[in-house]
Amino acid sequence: MNNTKPTLFTSLSPALLHLYEVNNSVVVIIDVLRATSTIAAALYNGAKCIIPVDSVSRCIEIGKQIDGITAGERDGKVAEGLVYGNSPFEYPRGFVEGKTLVLTTTNGTRLLQMALDKGAKEIVTGSFPNLSAVCDHLIDMKQNVILGCAAWKDRVNMEDMLFAGAIISNIGRHFSINCDSSHLAEATYKKAAKDLFGFMKKNNASHYHRLMGFGLEKDIRYCLTPDQANVLPIYRDGKLVLKSEV
Amino acid sequence: MNNTKPTLFTSLSPALLHLYEVNNSVVVIIDVLRATSTIAAALYNGAKCIIPVDSVSRCIEIGKQIDGITAGERDGKVAEGLVYGNSPFEYPRGFVEGKTLVLTTTNGTRLLQMALDKGAKEIVTGSFPNLSAVCDHLIDMKQNVILGCAAWKDRVNMEDMLFAGAIISNIGRHFSINCDSSHLAEATYKKAAKDLFGFMKKNNASHYHRLMGFGLEKDIRYCLTPDQANVLPIYRDGKLVLKSEV
Repeated sequence: MNNTKPTLFTSLSPALLHLYEVNNSVVVIIDVLRATSTIAAALYNGAKCIIPVDSVSRCIEIGKQIDGITAGERDGKVAEGLVYGNSPFEYPRGFVEGKTLVLTTTNGTRLLQMALDKGAKEIVTGSFPNLSAVCDHLIDMKQNVILGCAAWKDRVNMEDMLFAGAIISNIGRHFSINCDSSHLAEATYKKAAKDLFGFMKKNNASHYHRLMGFGLEKDIRYCLTPDQANVLPIYRDGKLVLKSEV
Repeated sequence: MNNTKPTLFTSLSPALLHLYEVNNSVVVIIDVLRATSTIAAALYNGAKCIIPVDSVSRCIEIGKQIDGITAGERDGKVAEGLVYGNSPFEYPRGFVEGKTLVLTTTNGTRLLQMALDKGAKEIVTGSFPNLSAVCDHLIDMKQNVILGCAAWKDRVNMEDMLFAGAIISNIGRHFSINCDSSHLAEATYKKAAKDLFGFMKKNNASHYHRLMGFGLEKDIRYCLTPDQANVLPIYRDGKLVLKSEV
C-alpha cells in the first residue's frame, strides 16, 4: 500500500506559477470575481461549452465563426466590441442553454492559457459557486494539485486566496502540503468563513471596492456563496465543458 | 495643507517586486528568518557596518580585501567557504563591535540587490527585533513605502508576511493602502500577534520546520520578538549602517 499523499501548492499570482511543477499537476484556475464564478453559472445553466480566449479580438473572431455569445471584461467592465460581460447573472438558463460562450477576462483566461502553455496535466476552474464539485474532483483524482489564483494583473488578491483556503480547509488532509501560501490561505479562510462578504468589506479588498463602485454587490454576494452552481468545468480541446459530459 | 497620504504596498515575493513603483519608494527589505534579524542584531551590538553581497565568492573576495567577517548561509546553513552563519547569536557585542560583516544569504541580500537595481529611493531592513525603529522611520519619512518580503526562493512565506502585517497594524493609518497583500498581511498578523511562535508552529510554516530541524528554536524565538535590537539599518554606498550614523 502506498501511503504517499499527492502534493498541493497554492500559487497566489500568475507571476508565481513558474515556481511550481505545472506539468505534473492538476491546476485549478481561480478567479472568484468573476470569471470562474460565471463559468460555473453558465455551465450549470446549460451552456454547451465555454471557449476561453486571451484577447478581445480573438473573442470576436471566434464568436463570428461559431455563432457564439461573445463575452468578457477588461478592468471589470464589458470589453469594447463584446456584447456581454462577466456577470453570472447575464447567463440564466433561458438565455444560455445549449449555447457556446466565447469568454475573455482580465486575469482568469490569461492564467488558464499560462497553465496550458506549461503543460498542465488537467485544468479545471473553481470558485465558491462550485466549491464542493472542485473538492470532490480533486479527491477523486489523487494527483498533485496547484491552486492557481488569477489575482489582479499579477497582484495577489483576497478573494482568490480565500477560495484556495476554502479548498484546503475542506480537503487539505488528503494532500501533503509544504507551502506557506496554502497555510496562509487556510488560516485566512478559517477566519473569514462565517461571513466572507463581511471579511472582504472589513479588510478593504480592492476588488470588493472596484465592483461595489459599479453597483455589483449582488455579483459579489453570488460569487462568495458556496455551491450555487455546483458543477465541474474541465478543459478539453480548447473548451471548458462539464466533467459529466467528458 | 496637503492631506494626501503616501502609499504603502506589500510585495510578498521578489518575483512580484516589479509590479510596484520601486524607484518612487522607500523599500523595507524583510527577511525575518534570519537575515534582517541578524543585521539588526549585529548593528545593535556595535558592528561598524554590514556589506550585503549576493554571492559566496564575492563575500570571500570582499572579506579578504577589508579584513571583514565573512558570513552567510545557503538553504539555512553556513555557506561553504564562509566562516560564520546567519544567526543573530553569532554576533554578540564582544565579537562584532567595531567590525565589518560581509553577508550573503539565500533570499534577503538578493532582494536588496533587486531593489537597488530598480532604483529604490532608499533601502532599510526590517524584522521583529527592530520593528519600532522601522515604524518610526517610515512615519518620519512621509514617502511612499514598499514592504519587500524576501520570501523563500520566490515562494511567499509566513514570517515575512507577518512582519509586513505588524508594520501595517502599527502605522497603516499614516498611509493610503490599496493593496490586498497589505490587508491580508495585517489581518494575518492581528490573528497571530499574541503568539507569533505558536502561530508559525500551528500553521506549519515551512521555515519554522526547516530551522527547528537544525535545532534553531532559539533563533526563531529571537527573530519573532519585537524590539530586542531596535536600531535602523539603512543602505548607503554599498553598506548597511545605523541611521543615527548617517
